[in-house]
Amino acid sequence: MTKRLRYQVATSLDGFIATPNGGYDWIVMDPAIDFKALYNEFDTVVMGRKTYDLAKEQANHGAMPGIEVIAFSRTLEPAEYPGVRIVNDDPATVVRELKTKPGKDIWLFGGGELFRVLLDAGLVDTVELAVMPVLLGEGIPVLPPGAQATLELRDLKRLSASGIVVLAYSVAGSSARAPRIRYVKARRKARRAVPNGKRPGKSRKR
Amino acid sequence: MTKRLRYQVATSLDGFIATPNGGYDWIVMDPAIDFKALYNEFDTVVMGRKTYDLAKEQANHGAMPGIEVIAFSRTLEPAEYPGVRIVNDDPATVVRELKTKPGKDIWLFGGGELFRVLLDAGLVDTVELAVMPVLLGEGIPVLPPGAQATLELRDLKRLSASGIVVLAYSVAGSSARAPRIRYVKARRKARRAVPNGKRPGKSRKR
Repeated sequence: MTKRLRYQVATSLDGFIATPNGGYDWIVMDPAIDFKALYNEFDTVVMGRKTYDLAKEQANHGAMPGIEVIAFSRTLEPAEYPGVRIVNDDPATVVRELKTKPGKDIWLFGGGELFRVLLDAGLVDTVELAVMPVLLGEGIPVLPPGAQATLELRDLKRLSASGIVVLAYSVAGSSARAPRIRYVKARRKARRAVPNGKRPGKSRKR
Repeated sequence: MTKRLRYQVATSLDGFIATPNGGYDWIVMDPAIDFKALYNEFDTVVMGRKTYDLAKEQANHGAMPGIEVIAFSRTLEPAEYPGVRIVNDDPATVVRELKTKPGKDIWLFGGGELFRVLLDAGLVDTVELAVMPVLLGEGIPVLPPGAQATLELRDLKRLSASGIVVLAYSVAGSSARAPRIRYVKARRKARRAVPNGKRPGKSRKR
């Protein structure tokens, strides 16, 4: 099986990955997301320059242990970002080559512009969105203008603590299907509220 | 209980309710949606002028049996659209008045501009989207620019035939919660394919 290229990002309900000035404080967290399991599905991450501008502020210039991080940029100086591959070449050419290699999947980390380029090149296999319970009204779009993309719903998880909905789609025409969402822990059954505040069968510790 | 104002529309996965020129042929249907049950949850429909421009091309100028249809317009001539209430007044004032009346809920039928006006006036109680498995990249937004709206996920249905996901949110700060999604028929269990094409325990009629 060839490596899949999976566009996996958090979006607002109205399809923005950031506010107009790149803000993302509207993205909420949920304890059901097992980030370690998520990262473990990939051995490569690709991102556009604007996304990397945010990622490089993280520890180790955005390098991720066990994952090859590739940032596409015509201007950044590779020597300044050890542990990350700064690539000046055509993203479609680079990703097409990456997909021929054995190994885990490739995470298209963002942003929308890189998604558009790789989608138009027929290289994106899945669209996996963590949809936040917010309407932003404006911002950086999950996909900039261009041709429509038809999708096939493959899996869905509802995260009850936060109201996040995770949606996994295959891109129509791709030979690879989206994987099931395995990095979200099983939903625990809601405990029934009892009028006097006690839970049946459970004594309180003092 | 007061009438709820419920914004219920179909959107693309990236938050558009129509293509840039108003096209909606990307909206798919699903046999699990019980439209009669859906319409039966409302006794009033409100819509903006652009949405009504599409609705009035339907039979009876977009009038709906058993439902009061209100279209906000400063230019349309009411006499030309019998069975529909063409209203020239401020939408927020009109809707605020409608919400004090007894009865079923009010359907905010679209479009995004009317949603923005009524949301900013604090009058919208729910956001209920039928999310289609498509990325449009551009179009008429589900919510035009302005203040963010925080939502609370209330219910979700996955429509397996089409890949539509129906999401029901309450608007944070509203005193009324979104109802559960009752107009989607229960998902039938997928029948297991059997190698020789026969289904166990079921003889074929000829």
